[in-house]
Amino acid sequence: MNTNEKIDHIRQLMKDGNIAAVVIPSDDPHQSEYVAEYWQARKWLTGFSGSAGTAVVTREHAILWADFRYYIQAEKQISDSRFELYKMGEPDVPTFQKWLINTLKPGDIIGMDGNVVSRANVKKYKAGFEAKGLLLNTDIDFIKELWKDRPVRPNSKAFSLSEKYAGKGRKDKIEEIRRQMDALGASYHLMATLDDIAWTLNLRGKDVHTNPVNIAFVLVTSKMVSLFVSYGKVDNELAKELKRDGIEIAEYEDITTVLSQIQDSKVILVDPENTNYRLYQSINKKSKIVEKPNPAIALKTIKNDIEITHLRQTLIKDGAAVVNFLFWIEHQNEDAQITEQSVADKLYAFRKDQELFVGNSFDPIMAYRDHSAMCHYSATKETDVVIGNTGMFLTDSGGNYLTGTTDITRTICRGEPSKQEITDYTLVLKGHICVATILFPKGTKGFQIDTLSRQYLWNEGLDFGHGTGHGVGFFLCVHEGPARISPHPIDVKLEKGMVLTNEPGLYREGAYGIRLENMILVDQAFENEFGIFMKFETLTNCHFERNLIDINLLSKDEKDWINTYHDRVYEKLSPNLDKDVASWLKEKTSPL
Amino acid sequence: MNTNEKIDHIRQLMKDGNIAAVVIPSDDPHQSEYVAEYWQARKWLTGFSGSAGTAVVTREHAILWADFRYYIQAEKQISDSRFELYKMGEPDVPTFQKWLINTLKPGDIIGMDGNVVSRANVKKYKAGFEAKGLLLNTDIDFIKELWKDRPVRPNSKAFSLSEKYAGKGRKDKIEEIRRQMDALGASYHLMATLDDIAWTLNLRGKDVHTNPVNIAFVLVTSKMVSLFVSYGKVDNELAKELKRDGIEIAEYEDITTVLSQIQDSKVILVDPENTNYRLYQSINKKSKIVEKPNPAIALKTIKNDIEITHLRQTLIKDGAAVVNFLFWIEHQNEDAQITEQSVADKLYAFRKDQELFVGNSFDPIMAYRDHSAMCHYSATKETDVVIGNTGMFLTDSGGNYLTGTTDITRTICRGEPSKQEITDYTLVLKGHICVATILFPKGTKGFQIDTLSRQYLWNEGLDFGHGTGHGVGFFLCVHEGPARISPHPIDVKLEKGMVLTNEPGLYREGAYGIRLENMILVDQAFENEFGIFMKFETLTNCHFERNLIDINLLSKDEKDWINTYHDRVYEKLSPNLDKDVASWLKEKTSPL
Repeated sequence: MNTNEKIDHIRQLMKDGNIAAVVIPSDDPHQSEYVAEYWQARKWLTGFSGSAGTAVVTREHAILWADFRYYIQAEKQISDSRFELYKMGEPDVPTFQKWLINTLKPGDIIGMDGNVVSRANVKKYKAGFEAKGLLLNTDIDFIKELWKDRPVRPNSKAFSLSEKYAGKGRKDKIEEIRRQMDALGASYHLMATLDDIAWTLNLRGKDVHTNPVNIAFVLVTSKMVSLFVSYGKVDNELAKELKRDGIEIAEYEDITTVLSQIQDSKVILVDPENTNYRLYQSINKKSKIVEKPNPAIALKTIKNDIEITHLRQTLIKDGAAVVNFLFWIEHQNEDAQITEQSVADKLYAFRKDQELFVGNSFDPIMAYRDHSAMCHYSATKETDVVIGNTGMFLTDSGGNYLTGTTDITRTICRGEPSKQEITDYTLVLKGHICVATILFPKGTKGFQIDTLSRQYLWNEGLDFGHGTGHGVGFFLCVHEGPARISPHPIDVKLEKGMVLTNEPGLYREGAYGIRLENMILVDQAFENEFGIFMKFETLTNCHFERNLIDINLLSKDEKDWINTYHDRVYEKLSPNLDKDVASWLKEKTSPL
Repeated sequence: MNTNEKIDHIRQLMKDGNIAAVVIPSDDPHQSEYVAEYWQARKWLTGFSGSAGTAVVTREHAILWADFRYYIQAEKQISDSRFELYKMGEPDVPTFQKWLINTLKPGDIIGMDGNVVSRANVKKYKAGFEAKGLLLNTDIDFIKELWKDRPVRPNSKAFSLSEKYAGKGRKDKIEEIRRQMDALGASYHLMATLDDIAWTLNLRGKDVHTNPVNIAFVLVTSKMVSLFVSYGKVDNELAKELKRDGIEIAEYEDITTVLSQIQDSKVILVDPENTNYRLYQSINKKSKIVEKPNPAIALKTIKNDIEITHLRQTLIKDGAAVVNFLFWIEHQNEDAQITEQSVADKLYAFRKDQELFVGNSFDPIMAYRDHSAMCHYSATKETDVVIGNTGMFLTDSGGNYLTGTTDITRTICRGEPSKQEITDYTLVLKGHICVATILFPKGTKGFQIDTLSRQYLWNEGLDFGHGTGHGVGFFLCVHEGPARISPHPIDVKLEKGMVLTNEPGLYREGAYGIRLENMILVDQAFENEFGIFMKFETLTNCHFERNLIDINLLSKDEKDWINTYHDRVYEKLSPNLDKDVASWLKEKTSPL
């Protein structure tokens, strides 16, 4: 069945069901950033494989909304179908909600699958639609009927993450959550987000590509915790271990039945942003729902001392892997015919040599020359190129270890860099250093920090189109909320124990891109009459490129910072490196 | 009647009316920042004279909520009454809404005067109160009955601001507003904010201390504009001029009757943040209310070319007045017995010498030594001190001219400054220069700029407790929304033509404070492949203090900026200065 045939089938079902439009989002029932193949309905329907976007089919139109990261890719992937591309964020391009409101007639019914849209979004959509007399039916899942060769729902074996890595037992974590439930008067709490479940129960899995999570729901009560998973995911031994900690296993599909049987007038805490609408709807209508964020989100983002100790060690191992990789690549000339895809395997091998490595924390970006100017480039068979002896090369990658998740970007130049490449690299590095070294009052939020990494670029008429940094999970998702360092005014204070990235960049379309990314830990610096001041500790250990730094553009403090950092990098990494790599690193880290 | 007697009277009226609590806010019916005496009910009741705060009286409690600026003053001013002070912003201090919710019983009635609370606030309060079963009655105005010696409602003569100053005729402005009404499908628009009315109709007045506005309401329809003012405010000549421009005069009190008579099913645009609840309630229930910001707010904030040309000139006149003042004060020794209050008169006299000066744009802050550490200090008879031959002195003042409103702060040291004073001044100045010189992409918001002025302070464990800058009106209010440069994430882009202040500071409690404030204009810098870049043009002309600058802490670019700025200050101001002042300024502005 090709895309146009799929559209035709959907239209027939729409006609039969008196549905004027169907909306197919990119979500799964758990509001995951990375979605298992089983739930990639939008990709199945449109052929567009990007991570975000929304498809809408009406009787006359088939439209795909995609954001700026995917304009080119989406255009190409839908080119042989009747789908049109709507470029989100461009002026005069309405959101899909606005478009539906403008296009449909009062009384028209819009269909969606309540499984893959959050309670909060349904509320927002409904408010818009109903003001124009449109109806939203969230029980419409035509994909289910049409998608014959649908992959199976992932069901990897769950495994326990030892307290020696997690730093805190699941019983303690559950107690912390219960305390917050008590404060809200809630005797039930429904959790649907996979990383929050993984964190709370010290469980990991392999259900989602590069995210070590299990497909599951959790219901916490004051006495019991129920873990809803597919049959076979939890083996007997693990089930016994969980039972000892007060956790019983239930069947994944039974969550809705259990929610419908919650006792009348009991209070249940539900996170509207992170609970799909079908779950929300299935809760006994006579219970009382309190809509507040899942307490695990704020607890998980503050790394405990044991996690932090592991992380510091992990970033020595991970740094060694990356330095080995950079050494290796510098010694490959054009004849070696290394390509963007093949070098990714090489870096994987270096990481695999490290203790307690589990897998990549995301698909690595290996981007040569103009490819590096696309900040979310991912090499495919079609785009893969040989890495030659000249030009810029950007490598953004990370690993999942039992002892933490990593994320690092470095940019190198093959051969002699140009004056502009050196200036650009130095400006990005100055922004990186400004963030790495800033002290800030307790209570400061990420959006107050973001501009610090941009100011030197701005003053030269340059900028980059992504945030300065994102949160990172502990052996969990490489993008972890809620804190970010970005121009978006997210109302979350930077707190001691949060782990973020510091990754300013610069992208010259058609030429090259630069990004310099370290992981940073929020810590307290000191207290004085002006209050408590916080600082970032840089966790990542890997050198910057001497031949891309123009020392004339650096202040004395900036030069000192690089030299001190380089000393540390050498000191931490060299004991784990082969002699030739160590002496190469010695040179790379010698004082500016 | 003393405060306790007032409380007793209110309690009697509460008892008679079955009211459990009354709330007395600090607002007037126009949501003004500065409130005419007539509406200062909270001050009348409590004795506390600060510009913000809320009083609540219940049968058992009388509480005043005041913010950190006023903790000390409020404590003192209510000390001989039964009022207790609740310090807003301190941990564990609930808002007055929370306090009422926690204290009262379901079914209790809370009384407020709907005249002096916005539609938006009533909505917010009601939601909170009703969730706990409390009722809000907005027709309760006990103050009216009790305040026997109430001042009269101000009724200065309105006067026309010539188009040669305003840069745009009132007919054009009204047409712009009507276009936005059309876009919203509205055939009526109610305006209640005094500066928006003044701007739209090119009218000024003297009804509010230091704000050149008239107490008025305006109703715009597609054909007519009605100006609701007290009898006698508009003289015959002005009435004729307004009539020619399609504006009729109506009686101030008649606004509610007219609103109640709006035709059924007609659409009226109302700004919920800027319309008092009584007005909102009086609108014919069968009309349709669209709640959106008053279009005049966004129009007024973009200064037109003629306003900008005037403003540049005005800041030469105003700069000359301030330089004359700084020259004069430097030549006064302790024997002259000049005081904080007396020097304010002197500065006023220097401004009065300038063409087209109307009055102060706010009560000047003249703060010596430890007084300057209180960022909102205002000298009173009780606090006034003689300015001696040593120590820091901060002067924050502004003028209203027919050709614009000004706002400037300088800090000087009488005698030899200490090492710490020099370092502090230099760090504040570095932040000031960073903002003055930053280029930024079009679309950047004020909260993205704010940290730039703080970073050098933060890195030394220092900070200041106010925003970096606020908008300034054109011969209007010295604080004009909606744009600000502050840590508060206000969702307003910095647009070409906006006028703001750049005023970082530093306050060492009990010792001294520093603030360096210039006015800045947002302008376009250039466009390149990264988009359009914006810049600030510094408008203010006045030197900084050479003896408070540590040039070792400045980069070459910073030093260059000061030297270039000082050259301009001398060039612009010296033609209007007496010879001795000019040669003094020459020295003050000689290259670092």
